[in-house]
Amino acid sequence: MTSNTKNNSEQALEIHKKFKGKLSIEPKDSIEDKEKLSLYYTPGVGAVSSYVAQHPGEAREYTWLNNTVAIISDGSAVLGLGNLGPVGALPVMEGKSMLFKQFAGIDGIPIVLDVHSADEIVAAVRAIAPSFGAINLEDIAAPICFEVEERLKSELDIPVMHDDQHGTAVVVLAGLINAMKVISKNLNDCTLVVSGVGAAGVAIMKLLKLYAPGLTIIACDSKGVINADRSNLNATKQLLLSDQIISANVSGAMTDALVSADIFVGVSQPGVLTPEMIKTMNKDPVVFALANPTPEIIPELAKEAGVAVMATGRSDFPNQVNNALAFPGIFRGALDNRVNTITDDHKLAAAEVIASSVSSPSQDEIIPSIFTESLSSAIAKVII
Amino acid sequence: MTSNTKNNSEQALEIHKKFKGKLSIEPKDSIEDKEKLSLYYTPGVGAVSSYVAQHPGEAREYTWLNNTVAIISDGSAVLGLGNLGPVGALPVMEGKSMLFKQFAGIDGIPIVLDVHSADEIVAAVRAIAPSFGAINLEDIAAPICFEVEERLKSELDIPVMHDDQHGTAVVVLAGLINAMKVISKNLNDCTLVVSGVGAAGVAIMKLLKLYAPGLTIIACDSKGVINADRSNLNATKQLLLSDQIISANVSGAMTDALVSADIFVGVSQPGVLTPEMIKTMNKDPVVFALANPTPEIIPELAKEAGVAVMATGRSDFPNQVNNALAFPGIFRGALDNRVNTITDDHKLAAAEVIASSVSSPSQDEIIPSIFTESLSSAIAKVII
Repeated sequence: MTSNTKNNSEQALEIHKKFKGKLSIEPKDSIEDKEKLSLYYTPGVGAVSSYVAQHPGEAREYTWLNNTVAIISDGSAVLGLGNLGPVGALPVMEGKSMLFKQFAGIDGIPIVLDVHSADEIVAAVRAIAPSFGAINLEDIAAPICFEVEERLKSELDIPVMHDDQHGTAVVVLAGLINAMKVISKNLNDCTLVVSGVGAAGVAIMKLLKLYAPGLTIIACDSKGVINADRSNLNATKQLLLSDQIISANVSGAMTDALVSADIFVGVSQPGVLTPEMIKTMNKDPVVFALANPTPEIIPELAKEAGVAVMATGRSDFPNQVNNALAFPGIFRGALDNRVNTITDDHKLAAAEVIASSVSSPSQDEIIPSIFTESLSSAIAKVII
Repeated sequence: MTSNTKNNSEQALEIHKKFKGKLSIEPKDSIEDKEKLSLYYTPGVGAVSSYVAQHPGEAREYTWLNNTVAIISDGSAVLGLGNLGPVGALPVMEGKSMLFKQFAGIDGIPIVLDVHSADEIVAAVRAIAPSFGAINLEDIAAPICFEVEERLKSELDIPVMHDDQHGTAVVVLAGLINAMKVISKNLNDCTLVVSGVGAAGVAIMKLLKLYAPGLTIIACDSKGVINADRSNLNATKQLLLSDQIISANVSGAMTDALVSADIFVGVSQPGVLTPEMIKTMNKDPVVFALANPTPEIIPELAKEAGVAVMATGRSDFPNQVNNALAFPGIFRGALDNRVNTITDDHKLAAAEVIASSVSSPSQDEIIPSIFTESLSSAIAKVII
């Protein structure tokens, strides 16, 4: 695997250097003569500008507002690599724009920010917001990402979604819906242990609890199980307790929490789940080991320890939890159906569409391929 | 003309509605399989992000930084239409992006701002600056545009240019260089009357004085000639006096200033120049009537009054002063030659290139067509 990883990195550097940027701005028509120039630019464009200034509700009929999503990051949590800063985030944002186009025909504009406090990020995004049809927040570290998303959602009249939170949560829910079919359990009767309480972990727990209120969730961070007796819990963790998203009366280490649990979801660190821990779980354990690129446990080891259904974040194993299953369709629907706020109901509906796109869920197919045809248009239909 | 203008407006609205936005983001390669996905997005892109974070000087080799210009406006002075707000400015910024691509192969990204004070505009542009290779400021009202450009030039390490100021100034200088050849005068011996002391007027006066220190410039605003005796002059106008760009000891109305003047440049209002005023000017008067769409004087009237060389801002008369002659090549050169600051020398050099692209200047051809082949690449070569 080391040599594969190295090859992939080398190839990625080579192909990026070859293209010197992955995106191009292409005019939809050419300005090849004075007449075209007089329509697309002065004087003709003046009539268009005056018209949309007077009828802002129709601006999307005359400008790119109907098909654009700004992909915005401050580079503070780039993939699993940490704080690489704005320029370090740019290749990822350009890549995400490629995904937006490939899977939903959306024009994604990479914007990396040289500011990092919640106030400054909110101010910058608010300032540029009239330029775009929607805002995809990306790779912004927790806990700032929560405040930034919440404030922008309430202050802007266009859709705002932090994909690291909600895209991941939607696909995890879709995968668990199908995993339950494979092992014939009801999510409402299960106990779930989540390792990692960052952007993705928090969103996953909230969405799962909303979908299956009977689900028991135990959350673990690097210090063990989160509960009311722990001191120095940050606001996010306190809220998970006070909102009764997670169980308040479990204590100890993650090892203790896993005894008789049904499901493990890791959005944390490589190697934190061992075969020994899996063996203490209930019959037919389900393991989503989503740390990237190295999961919480290698699938081979998990299988040997008796895991019934396994998912990772990687494309070289079955059941890849990939945000690209969710965000293109969600934004496509929001833009097309003029939805100004992406709600919990939208996320639940998107998860159901993704789950039902797998006609016969099995151990090796609870999550569809991201190349599944028409998936994003099927999701778009339920974002209403 | 009324019916032509109407037709043009109607056609412009129609063609804009047909395309629903004039630009598309096109990936340079497609993500048609898992392998491509693993190179352009995770995990491969992680290696690229790590590399450019560690070697920011090489980021332009791996991202779109080498070919992008943000086209930024707050919509406070859109064309000659005034304050149309950010959404009203968007069609113009999209059009400008078409020009960037058509004439220089540059990817221009329209960004309209929902903030309008100098402090807020500077903060917003600084925040998003790492996303782009250069910044083109556009349609920001005077006097805020001066402070915004000055601060951004000193605070950012990428090229920043307010095109309404400098693009116009470069083309006016190019036109006057050739006009002097046609009438066999030396700009250093001439007297110039400028009507309009906004963004374009100020930049024109500064650049002309730099090119021809012997040129006498008299500046007029709506209250008449600007001089040291006038009270309540704003900071910009005071600076024109204290820097000795304009004459301090002329008084009266524009009519008085024009007596025995050689050149009139209008960046002001329709109709402010009359045939009677032209008849009081020196032999072979030169008139640049750049108010758009209706100039300070109609060319037919100016010709009848004895004007030797005439230019306007319109494409339906000879000698169109069009920024698109200058900005594509200036930014092309700045991006290609890694020029971080666009200087006065660059502007002077660009004007010389534009002027010399007309092989035999004549009354009807002192300024080249914007469709002149290779003009932007010729300009790019001198931006070093």
